[in-house]
Amino acid sequence: MPSASPIFTDIDFDRDGKQVSTLNLPHSPHEDAWGVMPIPIAVIKNGSGPTVLMEGGNHGDEYEGPIILGRMIRELDAAEIQGRLILLPAVNTPAVVAGRRTSPVDGLNFNRTFPGNPRGSMTGQIAHYVHDVLFPMADAFLDLHSGGSSLDILPSAIVEPTPDAGLADKIMKAVLAFDAPYTVILDNLGEPRTATASAVRAGLITVGTELGRGGAVSIDALRVGERGVRNVLAHLGVMEAAPDATRSESRVVQVPGAAGYVYAPAAGVFEPFDEKGATVEEGAQAGVVHFLDDPARPPVPAHYRSAGLLISRRQPGHVERGNCVAVIGVDCGDG
Amino acid sequence: MPSASPIFTDIDFDRDGKQVSTLNLPHSPHEDAWGVMPIPIAVIKNGSGPTVLMEGGNHGDEYEGPIILGRMIRELDAAEIQGRLILLPAVNTPAVVAGRRTSPVDGLNFNRTFPGNPRGSMTGQIAHYVHDVLFPMADAFLDLHSGGSSLDILPSAIVEPTPDAGLADKIMKAVLAFDAPYTVILDNLGEPRTATASAVRAGLITVGTELGRGGAVSIDALRVGERGVRNVLAHLGVMEAAPDATRSESRVVQVPGAAGYVYAPAAGVFEPFDEKGATVEEGAQAGVVHFLDDPARPPVPAHYRSAGLLISRRQPGHVERGNCVAVIGVDCGDG
Amino acid sequence: MPSASPIFTDIDFDRDGKQVSTLNLPHSPHEDAWGVMPIPIAVIKNGSGPTVLMEGGNHGDEYEGPIILGRMIRELDAAEIQGRLILLPAVNTPAVVAGRRTSPVDGLNFNRTFPGNPRGSMTGQIAHYVHDVLFPMADAFLDLHSGGSSLDILPSAIVEPTPDAGLADKIMKAVLAFDAPYTVILDNLGEPRTATASAVRAGLITVGTELGRGGAVSIDALRVGERGVRNVLAHLGVMEAAPDATRSESRVVQVPGAAGYVYAPAAGVFEPFDEKGATVEEGAQAGVVHFLDDPARPPVPAHYRSAGLLISRRQPGHVERGNCVAVIGVDCGDG
Amino acid sequence: MPSASPIFTDIDFDRDGKQVSTLNLPHSPHEDAWGVMPIPIAVIKNGSGPTVLMEGGNHGDEYEGPIILGRMIRELDAAEIQGRLILLPAVNTPAVVAGRRTSPVDGLNFNRTFPGNPRGSMTGQIAHYVHDVLFPMADAFLDLHSGGSSLDILPSAIVEPTPDAGLADKIMKAVLAFDAPYTVILDNLGEPRTATASAVRAGLITVGTELGRGGAVSIDALRVGERGVRNVLAHLGVMEAAPDATRSESRVVQVPGAAGYVYAPAAGVFEPFDEKGATVEEGAQAGVVHFLDDPARPPVPAHYRSAGLLISRRQPGHVERGNCVAVIGVDCGDG
Amino acid sequence: MPSASPIFTDIDFDRDGKQVSTLNLPHSPHEDAWGVMPIPIAVIKNGSGPTVLMEGGNHGDEYEGPIILGRMIRELDAAEIQGRLILLPAVNTPAVVAGRRTSPVDGLNFNRTFPGNPRGSMTGQIAHYVHDVLFPMADAFLDLHSGGSSLDILPSAIVEPTPDAGLADKIMKAVLAFDAPYTVILDNLGEPRTATASAVRAGLITVGTELGRGGAVSIDALRVGERGVRNVLAHLGVMEAAPDATRSESRVVQVPGAAGYVYAPAAGVFEPFDEKGATVEEGAQAGVVHFLDDPARPPVPAHYRSAGLLISRRQPGHVERGNCVAVIGVDCGDG
Amino acid sequence: MPSASPIFTDIDFDRDGKQVSTLNLPHSPHEDAWGVMPIPIAVIKNGSGPTVLMEGGNHGDEYEGPIILGRMIRELDAAEIQGRLILLPAVNTPAVVAGRRTSPVDGLNFNRTFPGNPRGSMTGQIAHYVHDVLFPMADAFLDLHSGGSSLDILPSAIVEPTPDAGLADKIMKAVLAFDAPYTVILDNLGEPRTATASAVRAGLITVGTELGRGGAVSIDALRVGERGVRNVLAHLGVMEAAPDATRSESRVVQVPGAAGYVYAPAAGVFEPFDEKGATVEEGAQAGVVHFLDDPARPPVPAHYRSAGLLISRRQPGHVERGNCVAVIGVDCGDG
Repeated sequence: MPSASPIFTDIDFDRDGKQVSTLNLPHSPHEDAWGVMPIPIAVIKNGSGPTVLMEGGNHGDEYEGPIILGRMIRELDAAEIQGRLILLPAVNTPAVVAGRRTSPVDGLNFNRTFPGNPRGSMTGQIAHYVHDVLFPMADAFLDLHSGGSSLDILPSAIVEPTPDAGLADKIMKAVLAFDAPYTVILDNLGEPRTATASAVRAGLITVGTELGRGGAVSIDALRVGERGVRNVLAHLGVMEAAPDATRSESRVVQVPGAAGYVYAPAAGVFEPFDEKGATVEEGAQAGVVHFLDDPARPPVPAHYRSAGLLISRRQPGHVERGNCVAVIGVDCGDG
Repeated sequence: MPSASPIFTDIDFDRDGKQVSTLNLPHSPHEDAWGVMPIPIAVIKNGSGPTVLMEGGNHGDEYEGPIILGRMIRELDAAEIQGRLILLPAVNTPAVVAGRRTSPVDGLNFNRTFPGNPRGSMTGQIAHYVHDVLFPMADAFLDLHSGGSSLDILPSAIVEPTPDAGLADKIMKAVLAFDAPYTVILDNLGEPRTATASAVRAGLITVGTELGRGGAVSIDALRVGERGVRNVLAHLGVMEAAPDATRSESRVVQVPGAAGYVYAPAAGVFEPFDEKGATVEEGAQAGVVHFLDDPARPPVPAHYRSAGLLISRRQPGHVERGNCVAVIGVDCGDG
Repeated sequence: MPSASPIFTDIDFDRDGKQVSTLNLPHSPHEDAWGVMPIPIAVIKNGSGPTVLMEGGNHGDEYEGPIILGRMIRELDAAEIQGRLILLPAVNTPAVVAGRRTSPVDGLNFNRTFPGNPRGSMTGQIAHYVHDVLFPMADAFLDLHSGGSSLDILPSAIVEPTPDAGLADKIMKAVLAFDAPYTVILDNLGEPRTATASAVRAGLITVGTELGRGGAVSIDALRVGERGVRNVLAHLGVMEAAPDATRSESRVVQVPGAAGYVYAPAAGVFEPFDEKGATVEEGAQAGVVHFLDDPARPPVPAHYRSAGLLISRRQPGHVERGNCVAVIGVDCGDG
Repeated sequence: MPSASPIFTDIDFDRDGKQVSTLNLPHSPHEDAWGVMPIPIAVIKNGSGPTVLMEGGNHGDEYEGPIILGRMIRELDAAEIQGRLILLPAVNTPAVVAGRRTSPVDGLNFNRTFPGNPRGSMTGQIAHYVHDVLFPMADAFLDLHSGGSSLDILPSAIVEPTPDAGLADKIMKAVLAFDAPYTVILDNLGEPRTATASAVRAGLITVGTELGRGGAVSIDALRVGERGVRNVLAHLGVMEAAPDATRSESRVVQVPGAAGYVYAPAAGVFEPFDEKGATVEEGAQAGVVHFLDDPARPPVPAHYRSAGLLISRRQPGHVERGNCVAVIGVDCGDG
Repeated sequence: MPSASPIFTDIDFDRDGKQVSTLNLPHSPHEDAWGVMPIPIAVIKNGSGPTVLMEGGNHGDEYEGPIILGRMIRELDAAEIQGRLILLPAVNTPAVVAGRRTSPVDGLNFNRTFPGNPRGSMTGQIAHYVHDVLFPMADAFLDLHSGGSSLDILPSAIVEPTPDAGLADKIMKAVLAFDAPYTVILDNLGEPRTATASAVRAGLITVGTELGRGGAVSIDALRVGERGVRNVLAHLGVMEAAPDATRSESRVVQVPGAAGYVYAPAAGVFEPFDEKGATVEEGAQAGVVHFLDDPARPPVPAHYRSAGLLISRRQPGHVERGNCVAVIGVDCGDG
Repeated sequence: MPSASPIFTDIDFDRDGKQVSTLNLPHSPHEDAWGVMPIPIAVIKNGSGPTVLMEGGNHGDEYEGPIILGRMIRELDAAEIQGRLILLPAVNTPAVVAGRRTSPVDGLNFNRTFPGNPRGSMTGQIAHYVHDVLFPMADAFLDLHSGGSSLDILPSAIVEPTPDAGLADKIMKAVLAFDAPYTVILDNLGEPRTATASAVRAGLITVGTELGRGGAVSIDALRVGERGVRNVLAHLGVMEAAPDATRSESRVVQVPGAAGYVYAPAAGVFEPFDEKGATVEEGAQAGVVHFLDDPARPPVPAHYRSAGLLISRRQPGHVERGNCVAVIGVDCGDG
């Protein structure tokens, strides 16, 4: 059985100039026997130079990436770059339209489906196209995340670790070029199915972000993100540096594996005891879970299992057992 | 057909001391033919004095009120008060358990069901009990709201207007005693079905709040709320004033009716242009709606229709047409 | 606005013989603009004599009543009776088709909608027809319930109390004629919206039952129910007594109001300590709630609040807070 | 408790010219505490003359009315009329957006909620505004329906009967002016809660339609509808007659009550035996219900209960028991 | 781990005569731990001759195939054939019972699951049985589709292309023998997971159809289909030719890949500009998308990207972005 | 891509004493980007001796196993054993919390997902951990099932067949040691994806059970199960025999493949004709399916296809076609 991607498009990836169109993924649900899911894409190319693939909407409730890439699509002129930009501002289109982390089509988290499957369900088909068709065209990959509905996180650029020391060095330089207030080294507990882990395995210079928070659109995070994308493109030689690109001081931290996470010990409502950005002690109470319908029952505490910087808290008060309520980063020295 | 409330309880409202129990509302869904919905309640009474009814969990995703009242239930000794406190920390219990604004049982917004209906669905049955059984016992009513999942709002105490000048004066004094950073006069566009509107019609000294925001639990808002509740109880003569009750300066604003609200002009993702607490101009752009799956389509702006203080913004980026994206308050002079 | 029932039928209630047809209730959902909900009905009439209205399927997951009435509809000859039988074997038709206690059309419990509403949603429209059209034709009413999905109950005939002493006497005699193993006096905590409470207010000789249990079809309960229906019809003079109608000894108990019910004190899985039919002591443990996903947490006990006969237990192990886990009846003397 | 409509708008109904805006209905679900449902409205006014209220989207899956009224809103100049047009092109806005007959907000059929309720759920609140605010402004009412998802119907103008002979005469003249291929006298089996039944009770000259069919947009039906609306407005003196308004011959039929409807006798798939527009005989088979998963089971026939013109068939093959599979009209003489 | 199909049946595929039974697929959902999904099957055999596998209900909302095969099962005598017919009138049984294109059990489109998986979810298990057990028994395969809920299509026989010229010739002859008004060469944009693509890869003489349309049962399509099936069976030598089998003139067209499809450019309601069967020009407007809740917004056009015959339009007016609104076929010369 | 399990835990499997903690499975749904599903686990170890893996909550609506293992976790002292116990009292945690047979996270039946998949959805990830991490540590495996919501079954210990005669002998001895009232040899029609089939393939001494029934918690079944688990642990040399471990007489039966099962011949309500535990004849009626909404339609019978002991009946009266309504076991001689 053939295994090429079923996605088709009228984009010519080798043509100079700006093209704005869609990737068309045939699918055949009850409501539409012979239609497609159109995934927005733009290619902006000018002469020779590196190819940078930029993705927003990996999760559908993280809005700064899609807004920043959409603005570039509308406003950037091909003459302003040298090389090629491939922009996927809303790659997980059904999730973006729904404003949900995961796809309403098949319930999957796009960022847990790499390297994808051309004959699987929709989310894996999109991942397969990114992995098998677009990654091979690219030199670098920017995956623009925000905290989404559940995380209230510090604005950060993200380093995906790799055992390839040469690549790791290029990645760290590119991430520091982004110049977010915080730089976080994070491997998702070794999860290999993410876009960035796959991109790193494919040898791409990979830059992740966590820009905004709480399922909202943040004015600050947009500013950080727009400046950071420009900085990385300048670092890669695709654009000129912006006038405001002066290097600031990004604080570099690493999430120390499972010990960096605090999980809700019971279902209820979590009251945090520290603000995001605080320095916390190992063993201290991170907060308590309240049982609002049973006020006589004493709240149950959760404890930090590592000292360090409180880089993220849970946004919704409501928790199920095991929900992540706090994440700690340990300083690695400045960037 | 009889019209008394079907709710029963083992609470003796006239007994001195602290009782913690439940209101039991019989209901009969598929899963449980002969059970009840238990609604937590506590009564703390000591001698004579005013009766203050305090309610949290009117909406199930507003957590500071329930946490504050739950803590009082566990920690307050009857000897510390003079009079009677009736505490309903999670009045809309099914919504609180679900962490949803509205009740998962019948889909209703508790705060749009007053004066309730003893033979209606569950939400109206609870409202009826509050209105017909508890309001007549009470001299004052505190309804502790937060912004819930959709609002990112300034921490405020709320004045429900009334044409009864004498009552209005008592209400303003009690709300100012709460001493929140902001005091907001707000009538929900004349909505008569809220708990506070009903309480005011019933002649109660009524204090509303909007403590926290974004469906989260806020450390600041808990501090504001705990201090405010204590202040109001002291103002009413039920407790002694707290040592930290020194009067600060609450800024008093009024929402100028429909002109105070900015609604999303299209479905998409809203990017706000101003931070909460900003002073804005009439006619200025409040932000734009982006169409993330169609980046070539120009964003559509929304405009302020009144100058003033930006007291609330929408938390989720995702908007449907008509969603409230901003609320303006006009200064009334300081409190 | 007219308030007659919108239900129409080709049944002629005054015609001798057996007619099997439907009540047709117009409704207009998305799937069917101009259709009806057909509610099965049969009328079996022979000369003069009392009219007995018999209802099965008040709740859609209680099967013995509908099976017994369906068998009568197929097998009973008009010549075997004197008077008129009106049989509604599946009165809450959408719930019966779904096998659910409550109606999938509007989510309502039919037995909480009397006296109904001809312009309300479907469940209330059916209740209105029973109340306003059929009750006035009838001298007696049999409402054949079983325990449904949530109750594991002793096979019982049910007495709906009434302050009218003359009617109460007639009801008690008719219920005892049913001759179930147990006779239970039960007012649903004063609930006025049930079919039997409404029938009693309308002056009908009213016989309730709880035949089977656990959402299952019980061989025993079918035998009890078929014999009981025949016995009641004989008692009312509509049929001859069955050869096996010899009076046995029904144990008569009364549910002592709210104290008769034991409610789950927490969400989890309830382990009962006594078998149905046991004699229990006030204050003894009825069982414990386990927290299966948190085995270190000690189970929480529930206690009987009345001594007596354990007439019903909860069928599903899974409980929410407030679910009824046990019901006690107090002996009234033998029948 | 006040009972005025909570709907507000910036439309000035007395101003000359064309205004396009929204009716704003405050509602407060989980996703949006302080927003509105915006219902599109336009008012086109020029000097004095009759007021004609025109409504599309009463059901959300009937598209010709909304398309026709939307085109008028975009293209009609106030100078082309004499009097006032009030256009509600998508009155049941949530249903129109969803493409569903009934509202996804509260599950209700808008056309079963008149005269509405200002404090009920959303659908009744909209109906109340139409009934209490707009009907009193209007002389005539056009309610532009199509067959929707479930009906495959002949293109028709509809007469809502009234006992008021004078009004009935005006209505018949206006409906015949519409000049659809078929004119159908239809009272929905006496249903009083429809928009047209309410309008007639309010004394308005009322014209209904069933333009398109099968949940589709029909080129023919758009032509019939646009011409018909223009014809009625000319008849009422609000516009000049269109050049193509020459009177054709509408066939006038009446649905003879319940006997006009054929209902599915079982759940399955219905195979019809006659095409729409056929003349059928009483007692003939209208078709059969097949049991596709049990091919050995013989199909079950359904029969016509009245002779006449087959004006509508069911669109979806899938049927539940009681679904309307055919509707018959009996000739009343030509129009 | 064994990989044989878990499906079992009491059918003896080698026995002469007519057998009507079920394929039994064990599955174990919440509602039924140890049951099966029974899939109707019939085998009609007489002596030696080709084996023809005939399938209806590949999609559950396409009714003509199941009705035609069900009628053959009830009415055809084994003596009327020479060879063997294997009939699966409702192969995707759960979808057929639900009247949905896709299976309600696992959400999958049966026609995107070949060659199936004996240990996957239900839809793939059925596909595996058809592919691994039934295809090897068969010489020819008829897959009787209709347009289903979303397509309003011309009645057609379908040619699945194959690079095997000898097989292609046999297929074309068999499809032309069907003698539908239209013959369409269609490869679903190269989709390899369909039943017909798999059958062709397995070397079977494969005949597809699109008989009816719009989720309805069509009198015409039933006639076309019954005659066509008989014609193909005669062509294959299994039955005698029917008296009315005179060859008519089928118009043969080919869908020219992606250029043959018109997709909705925005979400809204699509108004088509041409009737099915029309001849259209490349670049002409196929129709416009209306925004019914925002009548001031101009409709957005969609254009044909190929000239030719309009063989299919979308049935529902409601569209999401990317829904197929029109399909074009290009003439290949007559059949 | 790495294929190790993503599950992590702080349990040290080699440490003596009792540890109670969780397996932590990272997952990333909309509600919780960086959290885990915590799966309760306990390890109780004392010196050397066999390792016994015990699992409850394979299906989430089978409660006796989880209760028994939970009690052992709270009450058993490490000094009471010799060897190692690994207890997973609620292995399919999301299903246990929901009280559903299948997981609400991905809809899968845990007992149809072995050997699992470390990169699949949650249910397969848990199965993979049990299969790849825990099975290799274990000598014996107890999988404590009950009948769940759909089965009303005799209390039984279950033998999973194996072609390995030596293992089969060890398994039979261990199962008989359990000493349930009934011992049933059952291979789920050859289903290879169950926990016990996988454990047997992995060479473990495997004991299954069906303790309770009907989705309820049974006092008897708890007694049978607690005694049986103790007996098996004694048999394996991990604990001392209980004082009440005297061998009773377990009746040993085998389910004779597909012929042992009776399936509902139609959708409706099934009335059984025999009680569980009865001896039945091949060809006799097992019961009838009633059509409650169509009482004139004759009930349809289902027949036994094997003589023997009626070991299980369906609990819910409501049936779909193909639901298992009865299971027969054939005697193998006493145990």
